[in-house]
Amino acid sequence: MKNNIHKSVNLGENVVIEEGVYIGKNVTIGHNSVILKDTYIGDYVTIGSNCVLGIQPGGNKKMRNIITNGGGLTVNAYTKVGNLVTIYSGTKISNNVFIGDHASIRENVSIGEGSVIGRAAIVELNSTIGKGCTIQTLAYVTGDTTIEDHVFIGPCVSMSNDKYMGAQEFKLMGPFIKKGAKIGNNASLLPGVIIGENVIVGAGSVVTKNIEDNEIVVGIPAKKIKDF
Amino acid sequence: MKNNIHKSVNLGENVVIEEGVYIGKNVTIGHNSVILKDTYIGDYVTIGSNCVLGIQPGGNKKMRNIITNGGGLTVNAYTKVGNLVTIYSGTKISNNVFIGDHASIRENVSIGEGSVIGRAAIVELNSTIGKGCTIQTLAYVTGDTTIEDHVFIGPCVSMSNDKYMGAQEFKLMGPFIKKGAKIGNNASLLPGVIIGENVIVGAGSVVTKNIEDNEIVVGIPAKKIKDF
Amino acid sequence: MKNNIHKSVNLGENVVIEEGVYIGKNVTIGHNSVILKDTYIGDYVTIGSNCVLGIQPGGNKKMRNIITNGGGLTVNAYTKVGNLVTIYSGTKISNNVFIGDHASIRENVSIGEGSVIGRAAIVELNSTIGKGCTIQTLAYVTGDTTIEDHVFIGPCVSMSNDKYMGAQEFKLMGPFIKKGAKIGNNASLLPGVIIGENVIVGAGSVVTKNIEDNEIVVGIPAKKIKDF
Repeated sequence: MKNNIHKSVNLGENVVIEEGVYIGKNVTIGHNSVILKDTYIGDYVTIGSNCVLGIQPGGNKKMRNIITNGGGLTVNAYTKVGNLVTIYSGTKISNNVFIGDHASIRENVSIGEGSVIGRAAIVELNSTIGKGCTIQTLAYVTGDTTIEDHVFIGPCVSMSNDKYMGAQEFKLMGPFIKKGAKIGNNASLLPGVIIGENVIVGAGSVVTKNIEDNEIVVGIPAKKIKDF
Repeated sequence: MKNNIHKSVNLGENVVIEEGVYIGKNVTIGHNSVILKDTYIGDYVTIGSNCVLGIQPGGNKKMRNIITNGGGLTVNAYTKVGNLVTIYSGTKISNNVFIGDHASIRENVSIGEGSVIGRAAIVELNSTIGKGCTIQTLAYVTGDTTIEDHVFIGPCVSMSNDKYMGAQEFKLMGPFIKKGAKIGNNASLLPGVIIGENVIVGAGSVVTKNIEDNEIVVGIPAKKIKDF
Repeated sequence: MKNNIHKSVNLGENVVIEEGVYIGKNVTIGHNSVILKDTYIGDYVTIGSNCVLGIQPGGNKKMRNIITNGGGLTVNAYTKVGNLVTIYSGTKISNNVFIGDHASIRENVSIGEGSVIGRAAIVELNSTIGKGCTIQTLAYVTGDTTIEDHVFIGPCVSMSNDKYMGAQEFKLMGPFIKKGAKIGNNASLLPGVIIGENVIVGAGSVVTKNIEDNEIVVGIPAKKIKDF
């Protein structure tokens, strides 16, 4: 398969582009970045230096088998990718997304229009992030998580998706966070919890159970303090 | 603008140096590192491999407008920068600072003499860190934070600067941490809290209010346990 | 010292290999990766792009003197190293280990067969990790820590090894975590705590004291909820 790279591309030094890559109009790619095979980069996208985009999933025996949805990585128009970012194959980044330096986004992920993925934030496999979300610096979105539109995930928020921490067979299930919810910095969300619309979770809280729409919860374990 | 690079520089392979860069005597720069325009590197500085220094700020519509103070990045004499580090334009790093691998330091930041910025620690924009501070591994210093001299920020400490988590207009304000304070690992500090001189915050605590000088606080929310 | 690189190696573009490096059969190294001097890479190892392996320790005056055990970095057969990973000299990675993107592993570390070091996880100096362990994404293993076989460290777990946070002379001592223990996401472990066999620590807990074998503990500070 050949590359299809628009002549207007602004390439840094030592950029590596593998085969099967599409690059649209007026794209900028920083120095030493690596664009692996079958990656699609839309018009006016900017990518920083020392990134690796379009990574194929892998693992060892302790890790689950990964089934990708086939296609390569898609990064749509006007999205900005920082420096030293890793993004996997089989993932789709919408228009006007901002991805901070040192962030990592795994395979089979979808990120909606205009969302922000913070510096050093990590989004694991099979997760969906809606439109207009903010995932702050160093936040951790575990695998198999759903985040609806306009959600705010504070810095250093932690999530998990394995109830038995590897001890038993268990269907891995991340949190489900409904639209407009806001999670305070360094809060912890347990596997499979459902967080209602417009919920506010206080900083440092540990959410162990589902939370109804519009509640404010704080503490360990997180408890309701009042309705809106 | 031309470069001004002292002949004694020890450059790795594939290093990229843009225009307007000054490099002093006996500087070492590792392989594949990128020095962007208008960066000043003082004498005897060492920089690891695969770094990106002198990054221009950017963002999307959900993010605030960034006003930089104009100048490029300054890294003063004898400072050591690890590998895979990102540092922005408009920031000043003093002498003898140590910056660990994977760390990221944003624009308009000032870091005082002899301080340590740990591995994968992040310092956001408009923050000031004094002399002789230790910011441990994976700690998160949010934007608009002041850290005075000789402060210890433990590993994985989290801070925030947005009281309403994007919901309302609000003057972003990080913590103000006075000299000699020590923050235990994985503690969370809320927007605008003032932490007094020589305060000790226990590991995992959530600081929601100002703390007087010399107090020891623990828990969620953090409460005083005794004076010195 | 000359290199000893098997002819079957699959090298990406712009790879830098310093002297004294040994590379076995059927090894793959991604683009822009840097293999520093005296690194040993066993047969069938795969390494991603933009990594830096075999780093020499360094520091400034605020940091302790580092005594390495002499040798370079050893990465044994069939191990997989992700992208943008840093690993230091004087460390030994066993067979079939998986190391995620953006992870960092310091000097004098030993990692047992089949273990997983998650994405952006950090393992500090002088620490030992047994066989079959899972160290999840963004987890922080402090210096001078012992982790026995088949331990599970959840995402964003934090540890510390300095009881006085730099204020006094103190023998640095990380946690000692016995075989089969499981630590929930975002839990904090204090310096020198001993965590018994098969213990479960709940998410977000702060462990301040030793825990007997087979206990389940939760909260701040972490307290026993029941035996198995």
